[in-house]
Amino acid sequence: MRTIGYAANAKASPLKPHVFERRELRPNDVCMEVLYCGVCHSDMHMVNDDWGMAVYPVVPGHEIIGRVIAVGPDVKKYKVGDNVAVGCMVDSCMECDQCRKGEEQFCRNMATWTYCGCDRIDGSNTMGGYSKNLVVREEFALRVPDGLDLSKAAPLLCAGITTYSPLRTWNIGPGSRVGVVGLGGLGHMAVKLAVAMGADVTVISRSASREAEAKRLGADRLLVSSDAEAMAQAVDSLDLIIDTVPVKHDINIYLPLLDIDGTICLVGQIGPEPEFDSMPLVFGRRRISGSPIGGIAETQELLNFCAKMNVLPDCEMINIQDINTAYARLAKSDVKYRFVIDMASLKME
Amino acid sequence: MRTIGYAANAKASPLKPHVFERRELRPNDVCMEVLYCGVCHSDMHMVNDDWGMAVYPVVPGHEIIGRVIAVGPDVKKYKVGDNVAVGCMVDSCMECDQCRKGEEQFCRNMATWTYCGCDRIDGSNTMGGYSKNLVVREEFALRVPDGLDLSKAAPLLCAGITTYSPLRTWNIGPGSRVGVVGLGGLGHMAVKLAVAMGADVTVISRSASREAEAKRLGADRLLVSSDAEAMAQAVDSLDLIIDTVPVKHDINIYLPLLDIDGTICLVGQIGPEPEFDSMPLVFGRRRISGSPIGGIAETQELLNFCAKMNVLPDCEMINIQDINTAYARLAKSDVKYRFVIDMASLKME
Repeated sequence: MRTIGYAANAKASPLKPHVFERRELRPNDVCMEVLYCGVCHSDMHMVNDDWGMAVYPVVPGHEIIGRVIAVGPDVKKYKVGDNVAVGCMVDSCMECDQCRKGEEQFCRNMATWTYCGCDRIDGSNTMGGYSKNLVVREEFALRVPDGLDLSKAAPLLCAGITTYSPLRTWNIGPGSRVGVVGLGGLGHMAVKLAVAMGADVTVISRSASREAEAKRLGADRLLVSSDAEAMAQAVDSLDLIIDTVPVKHDINIYLPLLDIDGTICLVGQIGPEPEFDSMPLVFGRRRISGSPIGGIAETQELLNFCAKMNVLPDCEMINIQDINTAYARLAKSDVKYRFVIDMASLKME
Repeated sequence: MRTIGYAANAKASPLKPHVFERRELRPNDVCMEVLYCGVCHSDMHMVNDDWGMAVYPVVPGHEIIGRVIAVGPDVKKYKVGDNVAVGCMVDSCMECDQCRKGEEQFCRNMATWTYCGCDRIDGSNTMGGYSKNLVVREEFALRVPDGLDLSKAAPLLCAGITTYSPLRTWNIGPGSRVGVVGLGGLGHMAVKLAVAMGADVTVISRSASREAEAKRLGADRLLVSSDAEAMAQAVDSLDLIIDTVPVKHDINIYLPLLDIDGTICLVGQIGPEPEFDSMPLVFGRRRISGSPIGGIAETQELLNFCAKMNVLPDCEMINIQDINTAYARLAKSDVKYRFVIDMASLKME
């Protein structure tokens, strides 16, 4: 089918309207009208080809909320009119050990990413959610539960699951002590989700000025990392730190805050990290880890959890025509906390 | 009681005979004649005050095998003639959460180390196993099970438990895939213990020349870290890597060898480690950790396991008079794999 999106046609070029073909429905495909699409840092990185993986034209977008407008003959889960969501993956091998245990993000044969991925059947370049329509196999469409605000749910599909997954992996619940470093798109979701799970939540920031904001998001306290006395008092006080800082940064100051067997989980920076001191690891069996998104089942669990607990990101709604301005603001972290594109603003002509 | 040991009287000075007083038995103390004492790298570090924690005179030694020669009136576990062992700790608060769960090495009020520790009752400087006699509260004496070769068991108390504890923490057993980096005192024990637990064991070395030795110790294979092709084939192939390298070293080459959720556990280097790449952590939820010794119960479990499975370190027996020569050789890694002092060589005059 013919559809329209916004695409970058070359490295770091501005996004412009782009008419293209979506594949005809395969038997197990659903076709959705995209209603809302979140704007993730990764979108910008891919447009700029920061990771050397871009295939142009790039139609970004992997935080997608839509409505089913057609289904293939074998589709069982969805019918026309259902509200559905798509995250960072649109396919995987479905056969390896990781896929079989619902961790398609770790597919041994590599998941197919929602944009700049290679379709497993026809080899075409995948196109993301900055578009009027999306075609996806039903197993990779999530159900949007009743009661979840469609206009705000999109960022759950990446920022949400990226913070939810480590909270679940490390068994966070009532009584857990969670620290969050970095209060951006991911960080503010980590706070809200950990609070909703019943954890005691500490936001760790260089600046005392974030205190009111941290508490507004539900955190129990702000720990100012430049306050040596407060940091010394907080030694051994956390079970898990979700570190959302998206650039190279020193984690040594955070390690002693972890209790014995505690973990700092990196979800922001993907790349080099500076020298670290193994002493707090050895003498407290502390751990440094990382985590990507979650699997499909876990993402569904997140959507259900957020509907039940009324957890939603703080969003700023934009029209698709404002996307380049939004990228410029995103590059300066000038958003609280996630841009969401109202896709009704995108017309075929 | 009056006893004799070998002590360093000042920073980096050679060890010399040293007559000193052991405390009179408290009600819950046992007094042991030291039969054998292993020589650990830490002994040398403390003599040289490398960690700024030395209190001179330093009588080193925390891999101690002995025989009970007297017991206090409240002692229940041991009687005169029992074979006992002492490791790195001689006391702890016994009241905190960590002590209560048998992880005295993480005592919130700090365990009392076997030498250069501060006695919890009289405040005196603790003196280690390079001595004719040792007095210790019964809870920190281990039972040497029948059948364990007394002359070789001493290194189990530090090199043994330091590698056994992470193997247990990370649930190694039949079917587990364990890598070992560094084939010295700790590394050779890691191989033997992991093999005895039924794991598939890979020694990772810069040099192909270690293959026969790795296999002699029971390893299934040697992986040569300078062989790019072999390293690429070994990606995702290990559940746990025990890294025993005792100096600052690059761990980035080992991270991709870990499977999803796999851990590299540092037990050698305590201090700075170079820059690392978070990508294999994020995209495989891999973990970097560390581990010290184990608790008392776990150390007893190790001794029982080694007796049952006939696991013993490779030792070179020396007389106490040769200790300074042994240190010089140890500094050059010229020992396969652990010096043990035959304490019968130490006479009162």
